[in-house]
Amino acid sequence: MSSSTVNYFLAASEEYQKTFGDKGSLQTPPVKKLAVVTCMDSRINVVAHLGLKEGDAHIIRNAGGSAKDALRSIIISQRLLGTREIAIFHHTKCGMLTFSTDQLRQIVKDSDPADEGLKAVDNIDFLEFADLEDSVKKDVKFLQNNPLVLKETKVTGWVYEVETGKIRQIV
Amino acid sequence: MSSSTVNYFLAASEEYQKTFGDKGSLQTPPVKKLAVVTCMDSRINVVAHLGLKEGDAHIIRNAGGSAKDALRSIIISQRLLGTREIAIFHHTKCGMLTFSTDQLRQIVKDSDPADEGLKAVDNIDFLEFADLEDSVKKDVKFLQNNPLVLKETKVTGWVYEVETGKIRQIV
Repeated sequence: MSSSTVNYFLAASEEYQKTFGDKGSLQTPPVKKLAVVTCMDSRINVVAHLGLKEGDAHIIRNAGGSAKDALRSIIISQRLLGTREIAIFHHTKCGMLTFSTDQLRQIVKDSDPADEGLKAVDNIDFLEFADLEDSVKKDVKFLQNNPLVLKETKVTGWVYEVETGKIRQIV
Repeated sequence: MSSSTVNYFLAASEEYQKTFGDKGSLQTPPVKKLAVVTCMDSRINVVAHLGLKEGDAHIIRNAGGSAKDALRSIIISQRLLGTREIAIFHHTKCGMLTFSTDQLRQIVKDSDPADEGLKAVDNIDFLEFADLEDSVKKDVKFLQNNPLVLKETKVTGWVYEVETGKIRQIV
């Protein structure tokens, strides 16, 4: 990592510690018994746009906000740390709407055709989607129908608009 | 989802929109060409403790802050959206230090021994770890040695202390 990034992190952390207060006494299980799944997208500050504080909710983030990709984390969240609600957020202008798994596999392999190790990319499903609202509905259904997710879980599905900062409930 | 959570989200979003400013013009590739991987733990407000703003960095979060679990997202981040640095954060008092995959599989199956669907849990590696600093070092190595991660990537490894809000660079 560049020394500028390291220094940036350390300076920001110093500032954060000044307002840390009594957060050190927070326990591991989230106070709101809530897990939020959303995209890794840099434009999303989910803690801010949902008004969450340290201690409130598990935040799971991956490319697209995929529920399938989040399953390992959700099982740990529910079975060991007591969460009982899940909110899935996908967002407008998401990178996942712009490519297919086949295309990305080809990009990776073409980057160095002599590198046999790159063929491992053929084992990865990149979980892209073609329709934003439909992808939210499918992810909610995936969780509602998955035997490893607790049956009493309340699952909602949302769209976050990167253009406006607004949220819309889909499910 | 409980109506109280829905209402909480909607009210918080109204507040967030008031200070949204010109964030709607931000583009998809992160400005800092940086991806941060950290745990889903509710006590971690990674955007705040690293002083990041909307648009700066991809934020990938899962149980433990596992690099292996983040690989799909990292490939998309690097190959399609131009990031070239990765910072891995694990944290003190992490739930991943407190159980084994075998134990959690048994907890899930024992929750309803008549439910055959629960046996699917035997296919999940929960990626727990026994030593915090060692887990950071192993995740950095995993990325440095993985053929699907760009060779020129700068990877650092850190511990976040939930007791103090401090960060420590390990690698």
